[in-house]
Amino acid sequence: MRDVATDVDRLFERLLAVPDDPRAVLYEAMRHAAIGGGKRLRPLLVVATASLFNVERERALRAGTAIECVHVYSLIHDDMPCMDDDDMRRGKPTVHKQFGEAVAVLAGDSLHALAFELAADPDTHPDPFVRAELAFELGRASGPGGMAGGQMMDLVAEERRFDLSTTTRLQQLKTGALIGVCVEAGAILGHVPAAGRKPLRAYARDLGLAFQIADDLLDVEGDASVVGKATGKDAGAGKATFVSLLGVERARAQAAALVDQASAHLASFGAEADLLRAIAAYVVSRDH
Amino acid sequence: MRDVATDVDRLFERLLAVPDDPRAVLYEAMRHAAIGGGKRLRPLLVVATASLFNVERERALRAGTAIECVHVYSLIHDDMPCMDDDDMRRGKPTVHKQFGEAVAVLAGDSLHALAFELAADPDTHPDPFVRAELAFELGRASGPGGMAGGQMMDLVAEERRFDLSTTTRLQQLKTGALIGVCVEAGAILGHVPAAGRKPLRAYARDLGLAFQIADDLLDVEGDASVVGKATGKDAGAGKATFVSLLGVERARAQAAALVDQASAHLASFGAEADLLRAIAAYVVSRDH
Repeated sequence: MRDVATDVDRLFERLLAVPDDPRAVLYEAMRHAAIGGGKRLRPLLVVATASLFNVERERALRAGTAIECVHVYSLIHDDMPCMDDDDMRRGKPTVHKQFGEAVAVLAGDSLHALAFELAADPDTHPDPFVRAELAFELGRASGPGGMAGGQMMDLVAEERRFDLSTTTRLQQLKTGALIGVCVEAGAILGHVPAAGRKPLRAYARDLGLAFQIADDLLDVEGDASVVGKATGKDAGAGKATFVSLLGVERARAQAAALVDQASAHLASFGAEADLLRAIAAYVVSRDH
Repeated sequence: MRDVATDVDRLFERLLAVPDDPRAVLYEAMRHAAIGGGKRLRPLLVVATASLFNVERERALRAGTAIECVHVYSLIHDDMPCMDDDDMRRGKPTVHKQFGEAVAVLAGDSLHALAFELAADPDTHPDPFVRAELAFELGRASGPGGMAGGQMMDLVAEERRFDLSTTTRLQQLKTGALIGVCVEAGAILGHVPAAGRKPLRAYARDLGLAFQIADDLLDVEGDASVVGKATGKDAGAGKATFVSLLGVERARAQAAALVDQASAHLASFGAEADLLRAIAAYVVSRDH
C-alpha cells in the first residue's frame, strides 16, 4: 500500500513540476493538495484490480492517479467556505486557507482537467478503446450522475433530513461512484468486457458503503489529530448519517457485514483477489 | 450560426433533463448557465472545421457541445465572488446569484465532468481513437497548461502589470487554448493527422487573439445592456489589456490585421473555408 502511495507521489511530482512563470502559485497549490497525503485508496484499488488481469503496473498507476486527481479536486472545492468550510485537511491547512479562494477554485479545476488528460493520454494505455472508456467512465462517475450529484444531495441534507434509503443513495453517488470507477478502470485496463465486471462492481458497491460508514464512525469517534481534519461536523450540522440513523453499534456491525459481503463477491477470483479483500478489511479498521 | 445555437440548446435540453430527486436544483443551475445563451462560437468553430472534412454534423455538434460545457463551467466559476465577482452574465443573474455559491461550484464541476463524458461517449464518434484524442486534447486545453493556467495569470495580473508579450501569453492560454481545441476537434473528427492541422492551428491562434482584443474593446466601449455583463471591469481593476497596452486605435487595427491573417492561413482550403473566414470577421465586429 505504501508502495502505491510513493509511486502516486512520484507521478504527481513529475506532472506538477512548477513552471517559472506567473502560473507558479497554481502549481504550488495543486502540489499542496495532491502530493504527500491521503490513503491513496483509489489508486490502490485500480492497481489491485488491474493485477487480477495482468495489467502492467505503470498503466494502472497512471489510471489510478487520474481518478485520484478527481478525488483531490473534489476535496479542494468541498473544503471551501461556501461548501464545508474546513481549515484543515490531511493535517495541513486547506488550499483556500493557504493560497486563497480564487486559487483554490482554479487548483481544483486544474486537477479536474488533468484527470482526463491523464486518463486519455497514450502513455497511460496504447489501446485507444481503453483510453476512451477510462475517460468516459470517469466523466460519468464524477459528474451530476455521480460524485457531484452526491455532493449536491449532501448540500440538501443540511436542510432536509434524509431517511436511510436516500442517505444510502447520497453516499453511493458521493463516494461510491468514484470507488466504483476504480475497479471498473482496473477491468477496462485488463480488457474485461462490461458483462464480466459484475462481481467487481458488486464488491465496489459494498466497499463504498462500508467506507462511508467507517467515515461516519470516525466523524463521531475519531481523534481530529489522527483523522487529519475536523471531526463531529456531520452531527453538528444535524445531517443524517449512517451513524445517526443506525446508531454506533448497528453501524459498526453493518460495516463489518458489508466487508464480508464485498469479499464474498470475489469468490471466483480465488486467492488472487486477497489484496482487494485486504483493502476492504483495512477500510473499516482505519483510524484516519 | 443560429442553427448551431439552436441545436446546442436542444442537446443541452436532452443532457440536462431535471431528475425528480434532491439533485434537481443542480440540474436547474446547469441549465440556467448552459441553455439559451451565448454566441456558441466554440461549437460553431467545431462544426465549421469538421465540415471541411465531411464529418457528420451531429458528431461535430456533440464534440462542440463538450467544449461548450468547459466554456460554460469556466464562466460559472469565474463569476463567483472570490474570482471576478460578477452579478450578470448573458443578461441574466449569474449562477451563484441565483442559486448560491455552493451550487455554483457544483454546477461548474458537473458541466466540467459532463464535457469529458460527452467527448468520450461512443455516441459522439464510433472510432475510439477519435474519442480518446478529443478527451485528451480537451483536457490539455482546459487545464493548467491551457485555460485554467491563463485564468491564474489573470489573477496575478491584478497585482502585477504585465507587458504585451506576457499579456499575449495570458490570453493565448485563457481564451486561445479552448478556441484552438475547437478547430483541433474538427480535424480530429475528420481523421486529419496532427501534421495536417498546421493551417487550422495558425488560423485559431490568430482568431483567438482577435477575439480577445475585440473583448477588451467591448469592455472599454461596449454597452453593458447589449454585452450582457458589466463593462469597464478590466480598466477598473488596473489590469493590462490589449487596449490599455496598445490604445483603442492600434488595438482595433491589430484585430483587423489578425482576422485577415487568420483567413489567409486557410488559403489551401479555398472557398470551402469561407464559413471559418466569416466567423473570424464576425468575431471582431460583434457588439456582445
